[in-house]
Amino acid sequence: MTKASSDTAQDAAFEGSAEEARAFLARCRQLVDARLDALVPTEANDPASVHAAMRWSLFAGGKRVRPALVIAAGEAFGAVVESLIRTACAFELMHTYSLVHDDLPSMDDDDLRRGRPTCHIRFGEATAILAGDALQTLAFQTIAEDDALDARVRLRLVAELARAAGTPEGMVAGQAHDLWAESRTDVGGEELDLIHRRKTGALIAAAARAGALIAGADGSELDALTRYAHDLGLLFQITDDLLDVTASAADLGKTPGKDARAEKATYPALYGLEAARERARDVYARAGRALEEIERPTGMLRAIAGLILERRA
Amino acid sequence: MTKASSDTAQDAAFEGSAEEARAFLARCRQLVDARLDALVPTEANDPASVHAAMRWSLFAGGKRVRPALVIAAGEAFGAVVESLIRTACAFELMHTYSLVHDDLPSMDDDDLRRGRPTCHIRFGEATAILAGDALQTLAFQTIAEDDALDARVRLRLVAELARAAGTPEGMVAGQAHDLWAESRTDVGGEELDLIHRRKTGALIAAAARAGALIAGADGSELDALTRYAHDLGLLFQITDDLLDVTASAADLGKTPGKDARAEKATYPALYGLEAARERARDVYARAGRALEEIERPTGMLRAIAGLILERRA
Repeated sequence: MTKASSDTAQDAAFEGSAEEARAFLARCRQLVDARLDALVPTEANDPASVHAAMRWSLFAGGKRVRPALVIAAGEAFGAVVESLIRTACAFELMHTYSLVHDDLPSMDDDDLRRGRPTCHIRFGEATAILAGDALQTLAFQTIAEDDALDARVRLRLVAELARAAGTPEGMVAGQAHDLWAESRTDVGGEELDLIHRRKTGALIAAAARAGALIAGADGSELDALTRYAHDLGLLFQITDDLLDVTASAADLGKTPGKDARAEKATYPALYGLEAARERARDVYARAGRALEEIERPTGMLRAIAGLILERRA
Repeated sequence: MTKASSDTAQDAAFEGSAEEARAFLARCRQLVDARLDALVPTEANDPASVHAAMRWSLFAGGKRVRPALVIAAGEAFGAVVESLIRTACAFELMHTYSLVHDDLPSMDDDDLRRGRPTCHIRFGEATAILAGDALQTLAFQTIAEDDALDARVRLRLVAELARAAGTPEGMVAGQAHDLWAESRTDVGGEELDLIHRRKTGALIAAAARAGALIAGADGSELDALTRYAHDLGLLFQITDDLLDVTASAADLGKTPGKDARAEKATYPALYGLEAARERARDVYARAGRALEEIERPTGMLRAIAGLILERRA
């Protein structure tokens, strides 16, 4: 694979192979991590503990799926990569804040993420709460201060990011619903879809839309892209649930089997392993059909969905 | 006092009396509370518990000092009140999020605020964390979607609100520093000023600046207004510390004497009661001198400072 040129993260001769998609994700990660490093204050700045905690969680080995979606969708619709990077960072900041708060003892109570202690285990609860708070704030600031984008586009991005992160349709609504569902045994497939549509789908869809909005995409294209991205979020969740059942701790970087022990509603628990795998393939196919409605080079978006379908961690 | 007209919350014949300032605050509170009620989803919307928790803390009897500052500063610089209300609400949403998170057990561990249970006592920790998160998100959304304001002004407001709320110079930085200082006995006057400048001063200053920015204020006027507002924040903290020593539980709506029991660095603890009162009067006078540099009708801003100097709760 040839090296990406300065104004695109995709290879111009991209043919949609998994190998090329992995190289694209690696390139996005490199671009985004370098920018995040410049955006987030270091421990040399007070309050050192909060900045250390923000960086601990931000640079914990995340796959940068949301930033990659901003960039892949933006490039599909004709934006140059440089115009997409700050917005890509904003989505990763928002995602990381949600991980830090969701891991807290009163929420999902997770001690380990990607093989190392979660933020509150490493820095204490107060610092973890504040680090999450500051990461959310910085997400909005990062878009608002992106002087390379038109003011109206930036405002639209701030508003869409907020709707995807908050209530009643966004991430906080999904997390609240998920916590409530944990205590119940009557959660069905439609409710599980709704929970994940809000908890992870909304932000993933907003990320893809953000890239397209920066590129100036129009209504019907945006609509198809949004359906693709919601299916991508659903696919991500189904494969996440499957890995919790089938993967090893070494692959996951966390203890597998946690959902079953918590008697949590999951796709394998609801449908059985094989039917959940079938559902994943159906959702992947539906995501691909949504992309076919868009007359743009969406090969990378399709390849990213393929990587998620086949992921092992 | 005559009733405020439709496009101003101040009485045109305002003379700066405490009575008029109290009427102005009551009028601002009415306007802001009505708009907040429309902005925040009710319990009829999922997730009901999060929306109930957001409203519990938002409509807990707050004085609405920050919204009043947005409106007073905006009107002083010539804006009409309708153009200021959504931004005023955004500052109250941000302030309320900080109260909800600061009250948490791992932070200041407060059970009571304004005479009733704090958010986590009433709704549990997970819901309180999520309600705070969603209040912050809604603050940014409220400004971004304020279609009555020019796009560039809105972006400036989002950026200033973010800088005042986050790190390294904003509210989260101040709260982190304050928590760290609690475990120490060597906190001096300069450090105490810095903590409160970030913890409360930054958001108060941003509120006053926001009103002026909406009105189109320029550099040197903004600079003087910022100095006034930082002194107002300092005045608020000194009088808060004094009330913790001298007021009754009935007046405060919380248990007084908490700072002394926690051996917390406060202005009365550092300087003694009488010298802390003297410091409050000095800061009030300095705030007034900053206003004198502004050739606008700043009587209400001065009167608000007077109310804070004389406050009993």
